[in-house]
Amino acid sequence: MIHITRKETFNAAHRLFREDYSDIRNEEVFGKCSNPNWHGHNYTLYVTVGGEMDAETGFVMNLKILSNLIQEHVLEQLDHKNINIEVAFMKGKLASTENLAIAIWNQLDAPVRKQGAHLIKVALHETDNNYVEYYGK
Amino acid sequence: MIHITRKETFNAAHRLFREDYSDIRNEEVFGKCSNPNWHGHNYTLYVTVGGEMDAETGFVMNLKILSNLIQEHVLEQLDHKNINIEVAFMKGKLASTENLAIAIWNQLDAPVRKQGAHLIKVALHETDNNYVEYYGK
Amino acid sequence: MIHITRKETFNAAHRLFREDYSDIRNEEVFGKCSNPNWHGHNYTLYVTVGGEMDAETGFVMNLKILSNLIQEHVLEQLDHKNINIEVAFMKGKLASTENLAIAIWNQLDAPVRKQGAHLIKVALHETDNNYVEYYGK
Amino acid sequence: MIHITRKETFNAAHRLFREDYSDIRNEEVFGKCSNPNWHGHNYTLYVTVGGEMDAETGFVMNLKILSNLIQEHVLEQLDHKNINIEVAFMKGKLASTENLAIAIWNQLDAPVRKQGAHLIKVALHETDNNYVEYYGK
Amino acid sequence: MIHITRKETFNAAHRLFREDYSDIRNEEVFGKCSNPNWHGHNYTLYVTVGGEMDAETGFVMNLKILSNLIQEHVLEQLDHKNINIEVAFMKGKLASTENLAIAIWNQLDAPVRKQGAHLIKVALHETDNNYVEYYGK
Amino acid sequence: MIHITRKETFNAAHRLFREDYSDIRNEEVFGKCSNPNWHGHNYTLYVTVGGEMDAETGFVMNLKILSNLIQEHVLEQLDHKNINIEVAFMKGKLASTENLAIAIWNQLDAPVRKQGAHLIKVALHETDNNYVEYYGK
Repeated sequence: MIHITRKETFNAAHRLFREDYSDIRNEEVFGKCSNPNWHGHNYTLYVTVGGEMDAETGFVMNLKILSNLIQEHVLEQLDHKNINIEVAFMKGKLASTENLAIAIWNQLDAPVRKQGAHLIKVALHETDNNYVEYYGK
Repeated sequence: MIHITRKETFNAAHRLFREDYSDIRNEEVFGKCSNPNWHGHNYTLYVTVGGEMDAETGFVMNLKILSNLIQEHVLEQLDHKNINIEVAFMKGKLASTENLAIAIWNQLDAPVRKQGAHLIKVALHETDNNYVEYYGK
Repeated sequence: MIHITRKETFNAAHRLFREDYSDIRNEEVFGKCSNPNWHGHNYTLYVTVGGEMDAETGFVMNLKILSNLIQEHVLEQLDHKNINIEVAFMKGKLASTENLAIAIWNQLDAPVRKQGAHLIKVALHETDNNYVEYYGK
Repeated sequence: MIHITRKETFNAAHRLFREDYSDIRNEEVFGKCSNPNWHGHNYTLYVTVGGEMDAETGFVMNLKILSNLIQEHVLEQLDHKNINIEVAFMKGKLASTENLAIAIWNQLDAPVRKQGAHLIKVALHETDNNYVEYYGK
Repeated sequence: MIHITRKETFNAAHRLFREDYSDIRNEEVFGKCSNPNWHGHNYTLYVTVGGEMDAETGFVMNLKILSNLIQEHVLEQLDHKNINIEVAFMKGKLASTENLAIAIWNQLDAPVRKQGAHLIKVALHETDNNYVEYYGK
Repeated sequence: MIHITRKETFNAAHRLFREDYSDIRNEEVFGKCSNPNWHGHNYTLYVTVGGEMDAETGFVMNLKILSNLIQEHVLEQLDHKNINIEVAFMKGKLASTENLAIAIWNQLDAPVRKQGAHLIKVALHETDNNYVEYYGK
């Protein structure tokens, strides 16, 4: 069993809130993260893939290709964006780190499979102190 | 499968030794860590929990609550303390990183379950070069 | 000469743009940072102070007090806020890292002097790759 | 289940290429890493072992012994060396991070077992952005 | 002007208190750091030296020699020790980071000069959030 | 006084040795770094510039431009290269970190001035434990 991981970063704004909650309820549940004027983060993303090692190249997957897939399917939509407003694959979802990690998995699942590998884990760090790991359904 | 992790830090003194060992034997087994005048560390603690995502909040567990539980059940007992002398949940145990990680798990297991989630892993870094991971029994 | 430094972090949203620039000009000058829907960062702040060492305490300044001053005069205004809209001490200024570092210095200058010390440097990291250092006028 | 991990570092030169590829093909597949004049890295190695906790010492394995085993069986062969030319346990293999992680596992497997523990994972970071994890066959 | 820096680490126990203070006064001034049962840290030390570049070697100072000097004059006295009780060069001094940084400078000043270089700065990090920089008198 | 810093990374191979030294003398002076088969590093480069803040943009210098200048004048020559053999601006010089930092300064000095700013410092980290800072003549 061998896994490789590529780390990428992006910066984005977001807000945690529900339209069906009162302002007071949003504040109770989401605290400072419910600020209606937004706040933001330097997100760090780790994408881990597994698969057979290519006998010729010694690679599970060419990391340059993996980096390009993350760029195309994730970073172009998220980097320097407002997650609540501008990101098509987050439409209608709460902008929690959990939901974002799952959505990133769903963006990458098919493209990684086309390369003959498969996703093992998507880890998303919102700050140095908080992170989410998603392993698929 | 989705996991969230909260990182916290604390500083403490400890000493590795056994009363039933001679000084020479303690030195052989525990090296500089057996110094009778104590030494100490900046410990870094990662607590990982799993569970069902709350459909309303998009959270596996509210990280503010997790942070408060770690504060109440772990950091108040350990931060700026002497692990061998002052920490009730380490009484009678060798102050190894392994034992400390297991004891931290036991402190947090019930409080995390009360929140509808469960512990996945307790990782405890004693220095940048050494860490322990405990996954429960 | 002896300096002490306290590190603090905050998360905020911002946007780089000028109202007197066209959208095209804003994009040319500020690139992705001019996104009208905001983006954000995990900012890291290092506040360095100098002064006489207190003969009784061996402290240039009590770091707990310095941390409290930063909390009161900087973080309460900035953390989880929108720098362009919500931060009184940034009103009317471009939300560049340079301007933010200078404004933080101005917020802390008098309170630190009241403690018998003085600011040496305010360093503000916007990402792992970019930071600003301000040493006063 | 309890695991301990020791981190070590080494610096080495390498080149990714196949003798049976043309220069153009090597460049296509391995990019800048195929440079015939070599390039190099500060590798970071994490060796994770598991086993029964020793009741007397509270250790899964004495980390000083683990560090010595890594020194003897891995670092003396790799540190400040050319991986393609000088490392006996990499002879005839492509110097990919994947192959290197597997070869390090094979170097450490028997010595760790002799100490009554067993390898769980070898993680090898080639840069801050790329790493490989190997869990054995 | 060219400076080189060597980073080293050590672990130690300490306590901040004055014998001529009451317990209440010690608690007021030094907070949790006055715990009579000690606490400790992973200290990180950065020693910066300057001087003429050696035309033959391209070195300001051989970093292997600098590392050995720090080992001999600083780490052997401090690593895994109790700073208040066991460290000859801290006798009679409050174990503040400020005093420790100055004492480390004084330990290294003469040995570095014998090598034809001179100290520029001693930086001592007590935690990730607090550090002291000393530039000499 | 306000400074901004841009961090960049590159990987390269090098060797420390003098042709006019015997192998034994090279080994004595340069240790493992004199290995004739090369070794390498992940170098981290911090380029700090100063200047007047542009009243319109709030920038000392546009960091995108600074990053591009470093890319063009430094990284294209150094990344994934052999410093002793392939880097025109290091020809005839010992590949010490000191010489490399000075050479990088000389590469960037004129291009940065053309942008209306000036270099303050070039810091080059060879490993996590060793770095050089150059402030110009």
